[in-house]
Amino acid sequence: MANTWSLHSDRALPAEPAQRAIAREIYDQISGLPLISMHGHIDVQAIRDNAAFGDPTELFVIPDHYLRRMLLSQGYGNHELGIEPTGAGAGIAAEADHRLIWRRFCENWKLFRGTPTRYWLEHELVEIFGATLEPSAETADELYDQLTATLARPEFHMRPLFDRFNIEILSTTDAPQSDLAAHADLAAEGWGDRVVPTFRPDALFYPDRASWADGIHSLAASSGIDVTDYASYLDALRQRRMAFVAAGARASDHGHFLADTAPLEAADAERIFAAALRGPVDAASASAFAANMLFETARMSIDDGLVMQLHPGVQRDYSPDEFGRFGSDQGFDIPVHIEFTRALQPLLSAFGHDKRFRLILFTVDETVFSRELAPLAGAFPSVRLGAPWWFLDSPGGMARFRELTTETAGFYNTSGFVDDTRAFASIPARHDLARRMDAGFLAKLVAEHRLALDEAIETATDLTNTLPLQSYARLADR
Amino acid sequence: MANTWSLHSDRALPAEPAQRAIAREIYDQISGLPLISMHGHIDVQAIRDNAAFGDPTELFVIPDHYLRRMLLSQGYGNHELGIEPTGAGAGIAAEADHRLIWRRFCENWKLFRGTPTRYWLEHELVEIFGATLEPSAETADELYDQLTATLARPEFHMRPLFDRFNIEILSTTDAPQSDLAAHADLAAEGWGDRVVPTFRPDALFYPDRASWADGIHSLAASSGIDVTDYASYLDALRQRRMAFVAAGARASDHGHFLADTAPLEAADAERIFAAALRGPVDAASASAFAANMLFETARMSIDDGLVMQLHPGVQRDYSPDEFGRFGSDQGFDIPVHIEFTRALQPLLSAFGHDKRFRLILFTVDETVFSRELAPLAGAFPSVRLGAPWWFLDSPGGMARFRELTTETAGFYNTSGFVDDTRAFASIPARHDLARRMDAGFLAKLVAEHRLALDEAIETATDLTNTLPLQSYARLADR
Amino acid sequence: MANTWSLHSDRALPAEPAQRAIAREIYDQISGLPLISMHGHIDVQAIRDNAAFGDPTELFVIPDHYLRRMLLSQGYGNHELGIEPTGAGAGIAAEADHRLIWRRFCENWKLFRGTPTRYWLEHELVEIFGATLEPSAETADELYDQLTATLARPEFHMRPLFDRFNIEILSTTDAPQSDLAAHADLAAEGWGDRVVPTFRPDALFYPDRASWADGIHSLAASSGIDVTDYASYLDALRQRRMAFVAAGARASDHGHFLADTAPLEAADAERIFAAALRGPVDAASASAFAANMLFETARMSIDDGLVMQLHPGVQRDYSPDEFGRFGSDQGFDIPVHIEFTRALQPLLSAFGHDKRFRLILFTVDETVFSRELAPLAGAFPSVRLGAPWWFLDSPGGMARFRELTTETAGFYNTSGFVDDTRAFASIPARHDLARRMDAGFLAKLVAEHRLALDEAIETATDLTNTLPLQSYARLADR
Repeated sequence: MANTWSLHSDRALPAEPAQRAIAREIYDQISGLPLISMHGHIDVQAIRDNAAFGDPTELFVIPDHYLRRMLLSQGYGNHELGIEPTGAGAGIAAEADHRLIWRRFCENWKLFRGTPTRYWLEHELVEIFGATLEPSAETADELYDQLTATLARPEFHMRPLFDRFNIEILSTTDAPQSDLAAHADLAAEGWGDRVVPTFRPDALFYPDRASWADGIHSLAASSGIDVTDYASYLDALRQRRMAFVAAGARASDHGHFLADTAPLEAADAERIFAAALRGPVDAASASAFAANMLFETARMSIDDGLVMQLHPGVQRDYSPDEFGRFGSDQGFDIPVHIEFTRALQPLLSAFGHDKRFRLILFTVDETVFSRELAPLAGAFPSVRLGAPWWFLDSPGGMARFRELTTETAGFYNTSGFVDDTRAFASIPARHDLARRMDAGFLAKLVAEHRLALDEAIETATDLTNTLPLQSYARLADR
Repeated sequence: MANTWSLHSDRALPAEPAQRAIAREIYDQISGLPLISMHGHIDVQAIRDNAAFGDPTELFVIPDHYLRRMLLSQGYGNHELGIEPTGAGAGIAAEADHRLIWRRFCENWKLFRGTPTRYWLEHELVEIFGATLEPSAETADELYDQLTATLARPEFHMRPLFDRFNIEILSTTDAPQSDLAAHADLAAEGWGDRVVPTFRPDALFYPDRASWADGIHSLAASSGIDVTDYASYLDALRQRRMAFVAAGARASDHGHFLADTAPLEAADAERIFAAALRGPVDAASASAFAANMLFETARMSIDDGLVMQLHPGVQRDYSPDEFGRFGSDQGFDIPVHIEFTRALQPLLSAFGHDKRFRLILFTVDETVFSRELAPLAGAFPSVRLGAPWWFLDSPGGMARFRELTTETAGFYNTSGFVDDTRAFASIPARHDLARRMDAGFLAKLVAEHRLALDEAIETATDLTNTLPLQSYARLADR
Repeated sequence: MANTWSLHSDRALPAEPAQRAIAREIYDQISGLPLISMHGHIDVQAIRDNAAFGDPTELFVIPDHYLRRMLLSQGYGNHELGIEPTGAGAGIAAEADHRLIWRRFCENWKLFRGTPTRYWLEHELVEIFGATLEPSAETADELYDQLTATLARPEFHMRPLFDRFNIEILSTTDAPQSDLAAHADLAAEGWGDRVVPTFRPDALFYPDRASWADGIHSLAASSGIDVTDYASYLDALRQRRMAFVAAGARASDHGHFLADTAPLEAADAERIFAAALRGPVDAASASAFAANMLFETARMSIDDGLVMQLHPGVQRDYSPDEFGRFGSDQGFDIPVHIEFTRALQPLLSAFGHDKRFRLILFTVDETVFSRELAPLAGAFPSVRLGAPWWFLDSPGGMARFRELTTETAGFYNTSGFVDDTRAFASIPARHDLARRMDAGFLAKLVAEHRLALDEAIETATDLTNTLPLQSYARLADR
């Protein structure tokens, strides 16, 4: 197997020669800029501990639900890909032979044609890990051995890669009850500005979730506030937000089902809260409570400066079978159509013009880009549009995001790229792809004589560096 | 009129030279492959009888509601285009002069600019029927005569064209009560693998339709089962499905208004069924019954292996005037926004992971491609995405389908092209256009260095041949 | 500052050389055609009075809510841009220093990159007003002086520009109670065919609006009909419509929230009308009344021939803060998802096939283009699709409109371009951009061998000239 594998330096740039040349010129100005990674799901303890990645299956297959869902869609089970059954999985066991799982992946490499997973994996395998063999049934074993040897080397542990990736700042995602110990350890080592936490309270905002009552108890414990009613619950949340701010946090994050933000009367909120402490509450009450908590979050963010990120519109745990056997985040979350304009009006009416408030909106539904999100971001000073999210974090998704939002919101009401990944090694690939797509979009404007090249280069630099830093700036730095 | 009419061999391929050259290379590999036509509305008796097509108006105008609706939109009446009034059409009569109708069409040729109808008709007229004159007021009569002469020749009857078109297999659409006699006749001639039926029970699933009770009686007659209650109704459906399977059927087809699949308790289903046997039932009950029957269909398909096709989201017979005068399928069906994610959850929760189950989803609403359909097909092993349907069976519709679904679902969770036509002579034109559009889409990936040319050619071949055969394979052959 | 500013003659044409050459050839045939401006918001009195435009801020910033909303989105207040607070704006005053406002705009020129505002402003500044300096912090003052001097010259007053712009006909927007005096004055000068009114009765159709009762009184006064009940209200509307027809009006315009058109029983309409005369009515009654009035408008239009324009789907005055301080139309109108298919069925069932009826549909939601609007326009003879509206009046919006509607509705069921602007000087820029985008779209069809060049040129001419004149023709001229 002597064939070596290389990637074209112009990949994902426009095919038309004149546009490609312009895009290349823009891309060359931004390709080396540091990575600003303000929203993601990297394990902070692994960074602190400078963890190794294990074998190729542990790095590329098991933690990547994008990759696994494609194999599931062709008939594999999550357990056949190394996922441990947690619940009603009696009779099935996680495949323990990681080399076998790797073969399953390599044999099905063609399934990923045309997907961003393919782009990311190529970039990771070739550019980061120096693989010389493209995945296939024939190459699977040799590639496995090659990568295993590479991953064992110290320069492929977390911290050296963090440096090599040129990550300027990385936000993790953390429960409000987290003691932020790993962040404190990193800060003690001088990494406090490089790795910061994000406040993610969803589990405490939906009182119909099984884990809610436990969450409230741990919230009380972590905050040192006796959470006995709605008022003390709000106090405890405020306390934890301040602890996050002290630990460097820039933002909170909210993965609600709907974008609803209607506030409740305090008495109604108290009533639902008290009922939930006693036992299960109905879905309508829980949904109203969650909407109210988005409203309260906006109010808190004006005081403490945490940027508010909203990621709605996904039905989590869609397949009861999969959820029952493997739990959440295993590839069976499916988007639904929801609306933003009316849902956000309570929050924006109250806080949308406040200069201390910032709201970054994400969606997996591109039909709202031009109809709702761009008009909102193009008017309200508090609103920024986040990067195309999840299923839309793809060449086409990014192209359509710019096409559908720029004409109404411009470039400067967008947050710049957000990678939102659990896969550490994919971070540079994701940022690289975003830079190429922005360069291509700007090149089209230049080629059509709608923008000068120097303007395009400045804009690309702003999208890559200035805007993410500004969008997630501390209140004092805005 | 000496001008001769010819079509450019690169039509509908990308305009940019580098992409066109790649697209051409891909297209050349697939343009000659046999046609797999797994969903359509060709009259099986016409095939059995090796029917002639009559005059040009009978071939091109009268049976084509795509073509007629464009003329209606500019003021013609269906009766002026040869459609016989059926109901409240007192005072109007179908135009009997087919040459006059043909002139009306030719004079309005410019209305079709930019439409797929134009593409298909050009292909049919030039490539299949050898026309040398482009339609216009001036050429109408000469073209009519030219085509009339051509259509009279034996090699332009159904069977020789079936061979010439290189159709490997063609599925018709058939009522459950059909005796499948024409299919049996064809099978007796050795055409049993070339022409197969499809089980289409809509009329039996909506108990509020005027024809429902009659349908139940003929279901009973055809199945030999005395249909007196819900249980015997299910038995009769099962019997008919088995008869279809025996006749070579690969699939059932369901043209529901909504995608709802919530099952009913058997007692509730029985109650609605019994009420409907006695007289009209309300729309809500009928809709709930229809949803329940999709659920039951999935259950049956696990036993008998018929692939389940779902075509929802169209409000049929939108114009009461037109429906009253000309009946259904006359150009006045209008799409509506419906949702899939929540609607399909009952069915997918119950059967979505079953390896024996296959569901092919179609839509006329492209907003669900990236938001709902691709995420579902990219996770559930049972789900495949059908070709862009009806109004979306067009160059732009096909391009957007690939752009909006591939990144999440890949190519291998799609069914390949489905022509879904009543117009036999348009079948090669439709498949040819789909092949060109797929070649163009793949060429862009190659030109952007996101896919190798040999991968693109393999993918194109799979989309053209392998995937439609696999998607509609018998249970034993999957 | 010796740099001179010029625009590329190929701007906004396709970048790919072969397509650009074709687009150029098409554009050259239509770029000089007169402007048909059948829907807009130009002040008729300013035309009559041959008004001057004042200073650059009065021309470009203050009246342009597209421009201001972008500055608002980055933190400016409307008062800082010269808008006078009207209501609860105590404590803030409109900035009186117009040079300062101009500087604010120029310093933020980069915000408009990639927006149609940028395109229009460039065209206006360079092509119409001969500016030689691109806006920036450095050039703001010199540019202000340059433009101020230009605007003072008589050839830059309304009437000479009207001639220079080559406007063949321009429709204003007028309340039903308007005495149309300025139109009469223009007619007396021989401009009666050049400037015509449009009947815009929204304020009289929503009985829950604060101004409704006053509107009814002025309707009575202007019509000379004592409006005491629903029947006399309809009579008064009919009288005013006839007055508009007599003054040259071609159309009515309806900016409803929803597209609903369900008629009420006369007794129910009477009941709501009577209640509204006595005091506030609830939102549901008002909404039902407004829907009913769309139905009644269609009925009236069959008698008097006014073309009916519908612009639904925008939540007006979304920000209570901004509305309270500055009133309506200040940049805080946000689109919402609404549906058309079911909403229009009552109206289309009653009048959709009537040859005397014409309905032109607009939307700010591009998701309905291919799903609902194109299928409706491609079937009903009365329905035409208006130009992409408001936020969609942009290069991308126009491109997607053609891509998403042409394949189902063709070109000949669209109205041609409608500028819909309050900014007189932007009219030629907007028409020019639309012509370039149509030329580019047609060039792609030619380059892909789906249309001949002579057909493309004829189509472009029809879109530019024939179709807008036909779409808004008087009943007698259709």
